[in-house]
Amino acid sequence: MSDRLYHVDGELVPAAEATVSVDDRGFRYGDAAFETLRAYGGSVLGWDAHRERLAETCEALSLEHGLSGGDLRARIDETLDANALVDAYVRLSITRGVQPGKLTPRPEVEPTVVVYAKPLPRGGLEGDPVWDEPATVRSVETRRIPDAALPSGAKTHNYLNGILARTELEDADEALLSTVEGDVAEGATSNLFFVRDGCLHTPTTDADVLPGITRATVLELARGAGIEVEEGRYGLADVLGADEAFLTNRTWELRPIDVLDGVELGGGPVTERLSGLYDERVEERCYR
Amino acid sequence: MSDRLYHVDGELVPAAEATVSVDDRGFRYGDAAFETLRAYGGSVLGWDAHRERLAETCEALSLEHGLSGGDLRARIDETLDANALVDAYVRLSITRGVQPGKLTPRPEVEPTVVVYAKPLPRGGLEGDPVWDEPATVRSVETRRIPDAALPSGAKTHNYLNGILARTELEDADEALLSTVEGDVAEGATSNLFFVRDGCLHTPTTDADVLPGITRATVLELARGAGIEVEEGRYGLADVLGADEAFLTNRTWELRPIDVLDGVELGGGPVTERLSGLYDERVEERCYR
Repeated sequence: MSDRLYHVDGELVPAAEATVSVDDRGFRYGDAAFETLRAYGGSVLGWDAHRERLAETCEALSLEHGLSGGDLRARIDETLDANALVDAYVRLSITRGVQPGKLTPRPEVEPTVVVYAKPLPRGGLEGDPVWDEPATVRSVETRRIPDAALPSGAKTHNYLNGILARTELEDADEALLSTVEGDVAEGATSNLFFVRDGCLHTPTTDADVLPGITRATVLELARGAGIEVEEGRYGLADVLGADEAFLTNRTWELRPIDVLDGVELGGGPVTERLSGLYDERVEERCYR
Repeated sequence: MSDRLYHVDGELVPAAEATVSVDDRGFRYGDAAFETLRAYGGSVLGWDAHRERLAETCEALSLEHGLSGGDLRARIDETLDANALVDAYVRLSITRGVQPGKLTPRPEVEPTVVVYAKPLPRGGLEGDPVWDEPATVRSVETRRIPDAALPSGAKTHNYLNGILARTELEDADEALLSTVEGDVAEGATSNLFFVRDGCLHTPTTDADVLPGITRATVLELARGAGIEVEEGRYGLADVLGADEAFLTNRTWELRPIDVLDGVELGGGPVTERLSGLYDERVEERCYR
């Protein structure tokens, strides 16, 4: 860990020197955008989708950092190379940097850019998944921050909502948050899917739900495979009555939900089929 | 600015060396509590109230930092001394520090403590107030994060809600946020008061409103002076129809609202009386 190199403001530095000013708005206010990415065989999966969502987050924050997608991508590649990583977890953050004055942001930004990478072996159907076993999930009291307060599509360093949700857990892997209105929304770091009568369901991003990139890929794969798909608003009971359920994010890919609130759900034929298609997608995009 | 000394993790360091690790949870997630304080004549006003609210924030975040109030106070005093400050703005932050793993916090915390101070002359009735002129305020679309998503009483480094509210402003000093339900809540960094028919009104902290320490002092002073007080839920029209209106926070003390959404409000006899009582309180607590 300690001899890993970070990419901070354009320089590769040892972990111990990877710091930001306490005046950086990323530290003071969590005033920063980020993406969690994954490299397989040295290739970042879905870079264009990450670049676009990052741009959407920055637009939601009125954060005009002035860096090109190529520049950001080069920093990621340099970080992977410097750490001799081919299969890796990558985190890219852009903050609004240090600015004079207090809360109100200024348009002129000298962004702080941080890239962090660590080894993460490829799982998929032929390897071991990154998760040890299917997830144990609990629904929590903490509600998902509504879009009217913080744009749901923005992935930012304001992550206390998810932390408070996780803090409610005692012996579970993921917290399932509902919206203020009571619809099931998402996990603290994952999107939710469930299968009923052969139809794949997931909470709509018209509600307060992060448009996960793995979520979008799974929906695309399901539609391409002729699996019936519905994006909607669901109550907890809908999920508890499902035939199969799973979570998605960049790191976990598709992770079956073993138990939700004490009710056994588990994966099944649809989850397995989609996991296989996802692994083929990784093969196709990163290894050919 | 650059030769100012910061107090970081128990050491006084020059501004340029005042940094935190990019792995610090304060940077990664805004996983930190803070207080904004003010020193008058070398004395911190209302330290007990700040210490208590900080403890409440940390409890809301399950952040057991293990530092005593005396320790924290000593760091503030050392920072004031080292910078030869008697009248000052002070910011105290405690983060959950660096932890192994990802989002889910661990109970064992090695907190990061940062104290920052800068000169802020005493205003009050006999001096110049810290604000140049009464505030121009605009109501904004961004809604205050509901208590069900982030505890309203917690003062944390997750400050994007206020930043987005301020970003909506073009030519105003403060943004007035409403709750998701549509009640008037508070400014991005201030509490709201208004006077109608001699009665002082302020949004109740039973709704999604930060229990400001200056807010509490103003309520106490008003009650002590026999001014009628009501804490309730109000719409924007209630404020627009007020005889007087003002904002409070540690820095501004009481700042009259000159104009809200283009409607002239201004201070008046109740605002002036309370400002005078507040200044007497500062005199009493910090200079005798």
